[in-house]
Amino acid sequence: MQEKIAKVRTFRRFVEKEPISSDLLQSLVDLARLGGSARNGQPWQYMIVNTPDMCEKIFPFLGWAKYLTDWKGPAPGERPSAYVLCFLNRNRLRGSEGEAQFDLGIATQNLLLGAMDHRIGGCRIGAFSPRLANLFKVPEYLQLSLVVALGKPRETVILEESRDEDDIKYWRDEHGVHHVPKRPLSSCLIDLDKA
Amino acid sequence: MQEKIAKVRTFRRFVEKEPISSDLLQSLVDLARLGGSARNGQPWQYMIVNTPDMCEKIFPFLGWAKYLTDWKGPAPGERPSAYVLCFLNRNRLRGSEGEAQFDLGIATQNLLLGAMDHRIGGCRIGAFSPRLANLFKVPEYLQLSLVVALGKPRETVILEESRDEDDIKYWRDEHGVHHVPKRPLSSCLIDLDKA
Repeated sequence: MQEKIAKVRTFRRFVEKEPISSDLLQSLVDLARLGGSARNGQPWQYMIVNTPDMCEKIFPFLGWAKYLTDWKGPAPGERPSAYVLCFLNRNRLRGSEGEAQFDLGIATQNLLLGAMDHRIGGCRIGAFSPRLANLFKVPEYLQLSLVVALGKPRETVILEESRDEDDIKYWRDEHGVHHVPKRPLSSCLIDLDKA
Repeated sequence: MQEKIAKVRTFRRFVEKEPISSDLLQSLVDLARLGGSARNGQPWQYMIVNTPDMCEKIFPFLGWAKYLTDWKGPAPGERPSAYVLCFLNRNRLRGSEGEAQFDLGIATQNLLLGAMDHRIGGCRIGAFSPRLANLFKVPEYLQLSLVVALGKPRETVILEESRDEDDIKYWRDEHGVHHVPKRPLSSCLIDLDKA
């Protein structure tokens, strides 16, 4: 798993003209569906979007890469070719909202791991305009909470070790390579013998 | 990925005498570490526990299987042989607590997928007594949020389709097989054409 997990990075630039079929997207949602769920409530529902016109409608509502302050998001031609929109079904909620968020972390990790088997990458976007939800006529108990943008990656993402406690901002070098500082394992472990 | 993901179920009974090495547990935490993180804050830290005496100290604080009301948790001999305790480092928090919960969903899914490669299964336990944290002397900014119990599974878990909207309670049959109703894919999809 180590190799697969390391490959699942956040990608923000794609080969936009490469379509992703509805069948494949459904199989990825099926992986999301198989994730564990607190109290087995399974409160998430998913909408698949993969037509160029709907993708174009969704794009302007999305926020991209907070730390890349000079970059306004992917240019035409490198935008996502599909989206999976994640809606919380409040009627199915059996625990807290935090538990539902936890479940969605599991679900989208399954989805992105499955996508990588098809050389598709993605970006989880929680920073979208609330007006995005107005594009869709869904019942009030369905609350749009996350957008997963998908496409064939058109950028290289490299993990590296953080140099210090505050070094967590990802950055892009002069060749357009995206660097992501990760806290080293030693800094993620708490030693029981010292606790 | 489909097969691997389907195999990662919640297991609650284990072959307690099978130890799990510290090296393996560290490699699983390393997979957790590699998961994506909102604003790349990476606020989670992990404590590894795999000695019989510490496992015995932790066990009484844990809640097991809310829906199995007649079952008080795994008996001696079938209890977890290791735990990974997940602490939120509040100094590293860069977003909301919901985002941190989301990150921990990703992280623990990586951990459990990696564990399954070694035929180890686990159970995420959020229902533990707050007094559990008193066993450890950790700084105040570290908050114990989740316990991942681990071991070699000693039970069979079967996924099946929910019969209706309210059929989500897992149950155990007369042979001790654990059944988990999952909402069917059709009930997890929202049709864009009807939205």
